[in-house]
Amino acid sequence: MAEQTIHYEDYQLGHERLTTGRTITETDFVVHAGHTGDFFPHHMDAEFAKTLPGGQRIAHGTMVFSIGVGLTATLINPVAFSYGYDRLRFIRPVHIGDTIKSRVVIASKEDDPKRKDHGRVVERLEVLNQRGETVLACDHILLVQKRQAA
Amino acid sequence: MAEQTIHYEDYQLGHERLTTGRTITETDFVVHAGHTGDFFPHHMDAEFAKTLPGGQRIAHGTMVFSIGVGLTATLINPVAFSYGYDRLRFIRPVHIGDTIKSRVVIASKEDDPKRKDHGRVVERLEVLNQRGETVLACDHILLVQKRQAA
Amino acid sequence: MAEQTIHYEDYQLGHERLTTGRTITETDFVVHAGHTGDFFPHHMDAEFAKTLPGGQRIAHGTMVFSIGVGLTATLINPVAFSYGYDRLRFIRPVHIGDTIKSRVVIASKEDDPKRKDHGRVVERLEVLNQRGETVLACDHILLVQKRQAA
Amino acid sequence: MAEQTIHYEDYQLGHERLTTGRTITETDFVVHAGHTGDFFPHHMDAEFAKTLPGGQRIAHGTMVFSIGVGLTATLINPVAFSYGYDRLRFIRPVHIGDTIKSRVVIASKEDDPKRKDHGRVVERLEVLNQRGETVLACDHILLVQKRQAA
Amino acid sequence: MAEQTIHYEDYQLGHERLTTGRTITETDFVVHAGHTGDFFPHHMDAEFAKTLPGGQRIAHGTMVFSIGVGLTATLINPVAFSYGYDRLRFIRPVHIGDTIKSRVVIASKEDDPKRKDHGRVVERLEVLNQRGETVLACDHILLVQKRQAA
Amino acid sequence: MAEQTIHYEDYQLGHERLTTGRTITETDFVVHAGHTGDFFPHHMDAEFAKTLPGGQRIAHGTMVFSIGVGLTATLINPVAFSYGYDRLRFIRPVHIGDTIKSRVVIASKEDDPKRKDHGRVVERLEVLNQRGETVLACDHILLVQKRQAA
Repeated sequence: MAEQTIHYEDYQLGHERLTTGRTITETDFVVHAGHTGDFFPHHMDAEFAKTLPGGQRIAHGTMVFSIGVGLTATLINPVAFSYGYDRLRFIRPVHIGDTIKSRVVIASKEDDPKRKDHGRVVERLEVLNQRGETVLACDHILLVQKRQAA
Repeated sequence: MAEQTIHYEDYQLGHERLTTGRTITETDFVVHAGHTGDFFPHHMDAEFAKTLPGGQRIAHGTMVFSIGVGLTATLINPVAFSYGYDRLRFIRPVHIGDTIKSRVVIASKEDDPKRKDHGRVVERLEVLNQRGETVLACDHILLVQKRQAA
Repeated sequence: MAEQTIHYEDYQLGHERLTTGRTITETDFVVHAGHTGDFFPHHMDAEFAKTLPGGQRIAHGTMVFSIGVGLTATLINPVAFSYGYDRLRFIRPVHIGDTIKSRVVIASKEDDPKRKDHGRVVERLEVLNQRGETVLACDHILLVQKRQAA
Repeated sequence: MAEQTIHYEDYQLGHERLTTGRTITETDFVVHAGHTGDFFPHHMDAEFAKTLPGGQRIAHGTMVFSIGVGLTATLINPVAFSYGYDRLRFIRPVHIGDTIKSRVVIASKEDDPKRKDHGRVVERLEVLNQRGETVLACDHILLVQKRQAA
Repeated sequence: MAEQTIHYEDYQLGHERLTTGRTITETDFVVHAGHTGDFFPHHMDAEFAKTLPGGQRIAHGTMVFSIGVGLTATLINPVAFSYGYDRLRFIRPVHIGDTIKSRVVIASKEDDPKRKDHGRVVERLEVLNQRGETVLACDHILLVQKRQAA
Repeated sequence: MAEQTIHYEDYQLGHERLTTGRTITETDFVVHAGHTGDFFPHHMDAEFAKTLPGGQRIAHGTMVFSIGVGLTATLINPVAFSYGYDRLRFIRPVHIGDTIKSRVVIASKEDDPKRKDHGRVVERLEVLNQRGETVLACDHILLVQKRQAA
């Protein structure tokens, strides 16, 4: 994990990065259920899951989101912080054995209405599976200090 | 975990429920870092965290969201499924030892533009700490089958 | 998890409930070994296990018991508490990939000899696998407040 | 972990052993909840637990049992297997930070009614805390091959 | 876990012991990544691993070492302590599903240059897989009190 | 986690890097014991640990090593692989709540005797606590492809 100061002005619209991949294992299903307390049979009961479309246990949406975001956590920018997420959508199911990566594109920038010395950067985050299909998408809103403010 | 069929028509605007509570422990911090791979020092380094506002390690936003949602997972509704989340916001930090609960209010209902036999139900989810302060808020969008469709 | 006050008088002999199911994974084996410190090769060594009847690793008895009991923990009754268990028996092995459910039947009721305002309720707990076979059975003794005492 | 063959005839009534100790941590509480799915606030909610006798979170009974049994798992006896437990009782609460040990006493021996070449050995298992108080007790029934049968 | 006092003089050159076995599971891979923060795709990405020699995910060297050492931790010697390790080598990859054992041979003994009342005992530790191949080797240096010093 | 090709010729003697920090928690102690099966009371029994120098539970050496190495795993160099470690020494105890960082210095370079197109790079790895004291040291031997070989 490296640290790099990137001011608002230095975020480039359209810039794209792709993370390393990670195979989602049965272990991750069990860990996430135990971590969150959500033991719904859709995630935990292989017999029940035979009755679902796809016929298999389906990953928790919150897990795909958490791991998808975690994959992007490789660079600390001390002048940015996370404001929230918009339009988080669960697009396709993730099954045991799927391998996911995250793609982050700088989608928009705008002044922050409340903080003159900050701007809002929206990162479009897509989680992709091993077939290149988007399984989750969301907009991550960052508040980033402007260089002039430093 | 019980199962109960609740059709679109039966969701009542303004209906509110409050979950049981859960103390967020140092263990949860370590588990979430290990689960997601996000070992940023804001979450994991008590020495570094002394330099932050509040002076302590701060919970991962994805953890507060995942556990906050997990607390609500007590009733299986076989005719509803999760479409996504809007306006997810991290409002206050969660520290080791804080106890959180989730409050869910039925905030709005509308026909689904694409599926005639389903409606959209928006649950307003707020995660509260032991002082009753909102630490996270989001809108959960459910797609729910209409009774007439059954 | 809901809360519901059920007094001694309201437990009905013969009442039966069946929990949701849960697939016992290799992860559960590893977690339970690490949680308890029991790394016996019967549970942890696939090569050794080839020499056992069934030819596979066998779940810890304490794990089948703990998860079997955990599956029933869906309703908080504030006027009942757990006194102990009798006749806990390990009837069939549980292997990786088996899916278990718990069935609870109210088997008997009697006044508590020491506490006039409480009664003893015995829940017969059976853990079943995906073939409907009983893998574990025990009698759970609850001490429950009488309504008249309230 | 060593292996030692001990036949039925070689179990000595009154023989006693005491395990090493283990401090029950907040981590164990969180792991056990996640492993079993039992997130009752008695175990997980420090605020709620202030209203309980003792004013603290209380360990799951199944955890004290599982770890108490696990502490004894130091010697593999290939001619013995676990039949079950009788009279499992939760005698005192275990709190975060308590240190437990297990004491095992050979309490009784008798021929097995069904298997001529085996006998039943009852181990009295007591889990003790750092004040020497018994927190859990049970009778562990072993089926052990007789030497003459070998 | 038993305790046995073994003085320097009582370690016998060439004495060998072999531990019980343990199957290395996908869970162990995920736990070790989460424990150490090392999510390199060689360990975690099944798709990427198809491009490696062997075509599968490879265990972390630090995991094979930690579990290999852990397998030997069955006897507490209160007059010995671990000084360090020399010549730790990763000889063959360990894959998901391999079963490992550790073999410990007393390889050398010598007076400790700094502590007259202690000697150095070198244990040669080899981790073997289910085919009897050495996957890891190292020299464990113990400092052990001499009997005369007691 | 980024990927960067660094050939043998490009490693600079004396180059030093320092990782981010990580607080070693009680959770890490419990996880490592459960992961390795080493439940020695020095690590797990707070009562016993009162009799040790320092009066507290001591981290497993294999854990400090594994996490210390894990902290350095931030950059994938596809032309380097880990050959092993020399002179691994446990210099000071690590206690619950200590915060560690790893410092890596390129200590030596030499041709590999067996592989003409590779060289050996020795990284001196030191794990430091929050007081800047070295708690663990070792020499990490990397085999790195030479640029001319590419």
